[in-house]
Amino acid sequence: MAYTVPMPVRQHDHVSTIAPVTGADERVRVTYRLFGDQNEAAALARKIAFEQSVELPEAQVPDEIRQQVVGRVEEISPEAGIESARRATISYDARHAGAHLSQLLNLIFGNVSIYPRVRLLDLELPQGYLDGFKGPRFGIDGLRTLTGVHGRPLLATALKPRGAPVESLAAIARDFALGGGDIVKDDQNLADDFETFKRRVEACARAVDEANARSGRRCLYFPHIAAPAAELNRYLDYVTALGLHGVLICPMILGLETTRDIAARHSLVLMAHPALTGSFTQSSDQGIDHGLLLGTLFRTAGADISIFPNFGGRFSYSREECLAISRRLREPLGALSSAWPSPGGGMAIDKLDVMGDDYGADAIFLVGGALFAHNRELREGTRAFMEAIRARFQERLTPPSDPASTQVEDAVEIQRYFPFQEGFQWKGRESSPYKDAGDLAFKGVRRVELVGKFGERTSCDLRYFEVQPGGHTSREKHLHTHIIIGARGEAVLALGNRRLPFSQHDIAYIAPLEVHQLINETDEPFGFYCVVDHNRDRPMKP
Amino acid sequence: MAYTVPMPVRQHDHVSTIAPVTGADERVRVTYRLFGDQNEAAALARKIAFEQSVELPEAQVPDEIRQQVVGRVEEISPEAGIESARRATISYDARHAGAHLSQLLNLIFGNVSIYPRVRLLDLELPQGYLDGFKGPRFGIDGLRTLTGVHGRPLLATALKPRGAPVESLAAIARDFALGGGDIVKDDQNLADDFETFKRRVEACARAVDEANARSGRRCLYFPHIAAPAAELNRYLDYVTALGLHGVLICPMILGLETTRDIAARHSLVLMAHPALTGSFTQSSDQGIDHGLLLGTLFRTAGADISIFPNFGGRFSYSREECLAISRRLREPLGALSSAWPSPGGGMAIDKLDVMGDDYGADAIFLVGGALFAHNRELREGTRAFMEAIRARFQERLTPPSDPASTQVEDAVEIQRYFPFQEGFQWKGRESSPYKDAGDLAFKGVRRVELVGKFGERTSCDLRYFEVQPGGHTSREKHLHTHIIIGARGEAVLALGNRRLPFSQHDIAYIAPLEVHQLINETDEPFGFYCVVDHNRDRPMKP
Repeated sequence: MAYTVPMPVRQHDHVSTIAPVTGADERVRVTYRLFGDQNEAAALARKIAFEQSVELPEAQVPDEIRQQVVGRVEEISPEAGIESARRATISYDARHAGAHLSQLLNLIFGNVSIYPRVRLLDLELPQGYLDGFKGPRFGIDGLRTLTGVHGRPLLATALKPRGAPVESLAAIARDFALGGGDIVKDDQNLADDFETFKRRVEACARAVDEANARSGRRCLYFPHIAAPAAELNRYLDYVTALGLHGVLICPMILGLETTRDIAARHSLVLMAHPALTGSFTQSSDQGIDHGLLLGTLFRTAGADISIFPNFGGRFSYSREECLAISRRLREPLGALSSAWPSPGGGMAIDKLDVMGDDYGADAIFLVGGALFAHNRELREGTRAFMEAIRARFQERLTPPSDPASTQVEDAVEIQRYFPFQEGFQWKGRESSPYKDAGDLAFKGVRRVELVGKFGERTSCDLRYFEVQPGGHTSREKHLHTHIIIGARGEAVLALGNRRLPFSQHDIAYIAPLEVHQLINETDEPFGFYCVVDHNRDRPMKP
Repeated sequence: MAYTVPMPVRQHDHVSTIAPVTGADERVRVTYRLFGDQNEAAALARKIAFEQSVELPEAQVPDEIRQQVVGRVEEISPEAGIESARRATISYDARHAGAHLSQLLNLIFGNVSIYPRVRLLDLELPQGYLDGFKGPRFGIDGLRTLTGVHGRPLLATALKPRGAPVESLAAIARDFALGGGDIVKDDQNLADDFETFKRRVEACARAVDEANARSGRRCLYFPHIAAPAAELNRYLDYVTALGLHGVLICPMILGLETTRDIAARHSLVLMAHPALTGSFTQSSDQGIDHGLLLGTLFRTAGADISIFPNFGGRFSYSREECLAISRRLREPLGALSSAWPSPGGGMAIDKLDVMGDDYGADAIFLVGGALFAHNRELREGTRAFMEAIRARFQERLTPPSDPASTQVEDAVEIQRYFPFQEGFQWKGRESSPYKDAGDLAFKGVRRVELVGKFGERTSCDLRYFEVQPGGHTSREKHLHTHIIIGARGEAVLALGNRRLPFSQHDIAYIAPLEVHQLINETDEPFGFYCVVDHNRDRPMKP
């Protein structure tokens, strides 16, 4: 139902596994704020280097492990402006840093989060390691392409309050879009069962869509995704199927690694909400630095936009903390796209000049109550705000000339219909030799990959296998399961210690780690369909 | 390879969805620590009640929403012993509390985590809401049944350091088990790609297994699970397939809702590690109370065991904080099982008397270096520690007489082989009328559920459908996909706007939201196999 925009989407080449390629001398560098004199800080830093890597007292660590695994204290220096504070940098061999965000977080701050008065300030990841994280899928350029707005900050607002009828929320979305707003997102308090979610999101999406049809603009609607873990992908798939282009999520509630997985798996703009981050950022002598958490770490996890409470609002951030987040989102960080700072809370039209100076054009101003200021209706208030933004910035409707950002990715055409042909062939699919058995022995087997390997959204693949007279599949076991259906001829199904006759329309379920093999002892070909999990482990010898 | 123990496992009746049944007057009660005089605290509590529910200033909230959705300030009272601190209790209608742990966390602490000097102290969930969370699957009774140890605390240790060869880790596991230890867990720094993980875990599991065979005891081995989000279940399935009974996880790194999902999905003891919790608990005027986070919330998320740094060790917990966690894990909490406190760090044999007084018999003492004290070998050190525990507590090898805890659940026997029979029937499976189409129209269809609905571990179900002459399936669409394979007769496959002939061995893929129907316009029955995602959305009208 929503429009489709060609967009320069970054290809995430592998969804499920992060396997950073790191060289022997690449190091992860972590900087903490500690308190005490130089000697005290050095002793504490050394303790942390052991705590975070091997969690053993020095005396119990063999030399080789000390050299390869234990952190190395690189530098300790006084920190300007904070009484008795020091910056201590510890480095770890990147090969021991853990291959995903959960373990990285564990390495840099797991146990030491429980030390009194230690704050995580900075993190430098070597290029090879950083390449394992794809970061923002859209980033600043991608979202500009989606909205078609260049040269000025974007204007966003939130649908609220929880408890309001769907029509009221949809009306807010429509009026904001008609007033010229760029992004309307759900409030993070909106979270419902799937059916309620669908009704609300569809109504709001339609309202924005209709407004866009009238205005000729491209306002985007981002629903809030918060669901039981097993249902997250269902909610996200629904949003994609509706034609929406982004979502709001809370990374510190979902977990950073879950956030990365969502970014890798769904072609959606991720707008990150700071819920629960306060416990990390609040205190200057513990927790995690504002810029590192809401900037670097959120961006590494794939956030395209990071919302934070602007200084001067009802929360407690200082101007310096806000600007640090903003800088971290946009500074060079390996090959990762830069992301949008989205200051929100307590914003007003008369602050726009200052905000423009502080954040520049590549920011998303998240505005709520101020759109209603001077007793304006929402549509009019949005229009007034947009005028103020345009007065401060030079809007352009085309991107600065950069051919890279106008590349269009072709959608994959997925074939749906495979008529059967003589000799157990299918139109549109080719036979291939059976070859994914590694070093497992098989004989006289051909394979046709039918469905699942060509971009389909199934959780299983369907294949056809044919075993020649005297042939057999490999005898193997694995954690994943099979369902097999006899298609032609006759064979023996060896299942554990049993030998079972297996012919057309017979069906079997192969359970995890059950040893199995199909053996054709007849003079005719034996064929069977095999349904198998799309994501699966490698077969093992029995 | 590991032994099998009959165990009183709690049945989790629904894995993927938490849908608490809550009545109209049930309320979630949240208590915060605030600072200021009575009036200041009242004003701040009121602000929080709006912030956390509707995130709007009072003047902008319609009366009905104010009554139904906005939090109600229930009580404000001075907090003894802390200068100018007050306890403020706010209640919310449970129907607006969100139906899963992510949203509950958002409600009780999302935005307000960013307020200066507000600490989350307590949470009371109404029974109906709490029933939606199954809590610990094993709890104290279940783990006692697994280990066969009653009447005394359990002794646990960790495999470390990272970087040590697999054989060294396995030797630690073996010696600890031979010395009489109860649980050996991975260090949380151990996290690897799947193949490395398998090698290490299999070696350690075998070592413990062999030790158990020699000792006649049941020491358990819990590997650490930290993997890319999409692979968590693969690691957990492997652990289950190996015959292990539990795992170590870090709930605040994975996310509480992911933790609950793991507990609901896998029949494994969850031992929770406190990594990253320090940022919440450290400061007495912000973050989350120790007992609430590591006790109540971890237990609600399904932790059977909660590790925390014991007082007097190298971390910063006080005795009161440790005892609060211990109490929260074991106090009555709806129908949830009680869970094990596991104090660790800096423990020694001569502290056992005090620890016994503080924690009682239902605790797991996590001991590292102290097992090597007095230059003992690990096996001997473990034996000495166990003797000290037995000297303080009366060990029993049978549970106190309670028939409920000796109930044994029969394993489900999953059928694997379904020979085809005349008339398109399968031995072991029955035909049923086609009935899951809701209000969608169909005619003359019978269905045989073949694989997937009977406890199999497939991600897809396989069904056979048969359409009588003149009959048809319902015309529908849905987010989930189908793969269909012609089995007998001929039909028309209506796919979007296309009408395609469909007969034996023809194959089609039905993509998300593609309208489809099968129509039998012949005089013979038409049959087809249908592969469909096990977890799927309800079909919709086109």
